[in-house]
Amino acid sequence: MPSELDLRNLPGYRWHPNGQSAFSGDLNRLYHALDAMFVRWARQASADEMLFPIFISASELDKLDYFRSFPHLATFACALDPEPDNLAAFAKGTGVSEAGEVALTRTAPIKDALTPAACYHVYIHLQGSALDGPRHFTTRCTCFRREAYYAPLRRQWSFGMREIVCLGTSDEVKGFLDSHRTRVAAFFDKLGLDIAWSAATDPFFNPSGNPKLLAQMLDPVKTEMVFEGELAIGSVNFHRNFFGETFGITRDGKAAFSGCVAFGLERWIYAWLRRFGTDAAGWPDLDALGAL
Amino acid sequence: MPSELDLRNLPGYRWHPNGQSAFSGDLNRLYHALDAMFVRWARQASADEMLFPIFISASELDKLDYFRSFPHLATFACALDPEPDNLAAFAKGTGVSEAGEVALTRTAPIKDALTPAACYHVYIHLQGSALDGPRHFTTRCTCFRREAYYAPLRRQWSFGMREIVCLGTSDEVKGFLDSHRTRVAAFFDKLGLDIAWSAATDPFFNPSGNPKLLAQMLDPVKTEMVFEGELAIGSVNFHRNFFGETFGITRDGKAAFSGCVAFGLERWIYAWLRRFGTDAAGWPDLDALGAL
Repeated sequence: MPSELDLRNLPGYRWHPNGQSAFSGDLNRLYHALDAMFVRWARQASADEMLFPIFISASELDKLDYFRSFPHLATFACALDPEPDNLAAFAKGTGVSEAGEVALTRTAPIKDALTPAACYHVYIHLQGSALDGPRHFTTRCTCFRREAYYAPLRRQWSFGMREIVCLGTSDEVKGFLDSHRTRVAAFFDKLGLDIAWSAATDPFFNPSGNPKLLAQMLDPVKTEMVFEGELAIGSVNFHRNFFGETFGITRDGKAAFSGCVAFGLERWIYAWLRRFGTDAAGWPDLDALGAL
Repeated sequence: MPSELDLRNLPGYRWHPNGQSAFSGDLNRLYHALDAMFVRWARQASADEMLFPIFISASELDKLDYFRSFPHLATFACALDPEPDNLAAFAKGTGVSEAGEVALTRTAPIKDALTPAACYHVYIHLQGSALDGPRHFTTRCTCFRREAYYAPLRRQWSFGMREIVCLGTSDEVKGFLDSHRTRVAAFFDKLGLDIAWSAATDPFFNPSGNPKLLAQMLDPVKTEMVFEGELAIGSVNFHRNFFGETFGITRDGKAAFSGCVAFGLERWIYAWLRRFGTDAAGWPDLDALGAL
């Protein structure tokens, strides 16, 4: 295993210092092969495959108390007020500064945030519906989390997240999460990947003042797949009936329970490169490996 | 052919009034089958497949004069100033109004815009490089264009765009564009799709004052694939050496020429549903149809 992963001259990889990665060649193929494996796992649970947009309306996120819990992570979609004089003033303005900053003129009302977590789309989509059995979904979405600093593959402003989601009774969701944890753990064993399963909490703003954090600490609901003792490349999450209550989704007349298994694509690539090296000739066949 | 396309109760389709679409089921499969066909066409040109992020740094877009030419279309990524009191003020604030608007407190400097066109990433990526032969690339990116109004599938704030891009000498690029136009036209014939090829210009802000528009009108460089006389579902674009000059990309010691073929995924789905109806049982096999 390489002692340090040097991404600077890796063919097919380009780090964007604004917290993003670009891929081509073998790395682009690896990205899609990993995602295809997650999709095969999702299909075994008969999950519906969904394609969601990048924006989530702020009023939906507000129902989750997102802006009070995670104001530091949020990214918003912002455009100029389309009034012609305002656009003209911007177009004639000073443009972009040497520090790369744009001076906006008057902005239009902000109504949308960029997706913070792929599975939020699913609960919003199902809002107000009554489920007559357990339901499974999968989606991959680019997710956005503003951070104090960024690091290639490991900590990005935007990154790909594949999720497999279950809604149903408490037992149905717990059974789903258990079976997926078992499957993923078996895959890590087969891969020889150094993963510890570790209870975690969400990165709340102002944690000491947040009753939700206390609830998470008393009864852990998030278990992370932690690579080499420090990097969470995925997580298994039990939300109880929080989303069901928030969005009026019922199962057998009561608020539905939900849970999800989430995979961070760029972090999986990081772990893969650490484990198998940067030369694709030495990589195992993911299609064969993932067929569990 | 249906006289009007009713998307309201179409299974697997959900319109988000903020100018976006969500897909599942047959429509999600159609989306990916169309994109897979474009990728097969790109592979026949030995195109490198690239995966780019959503943000483009404002200073790169500024080199293209983007903000002066298209201020009305631009969407920016905006986050709060991370200073703790500022975040706390936002978190304690009034939240989201009944009109769905978020009142931000102080924002961090804005340095990034959301991708307006997929192929921009390619030229920025190649910045400062010398090409020793024609090069081909393909990428699909979610693109963002603020509009005065939105309409399902036809006019969206964000939409999927697949592009096949060529850089090289003028003749190499023209040859690439000609052969792709021929291929796409043959596909439309096979499909029985009502498409007119029509010269077009970019939607410049303040058009009468923009010399770039005049240049485009005198020597058309954009040809659109116009469905039913009104909806551009794709375009073939010859950029001359504009991107080569702007980003210092050379071919044989001179500024490289470039061109691209662009496909708007949601609009292709619109045309497909108009042509073949909303019932997937009546859809032709895209894999067979697209093998030209």
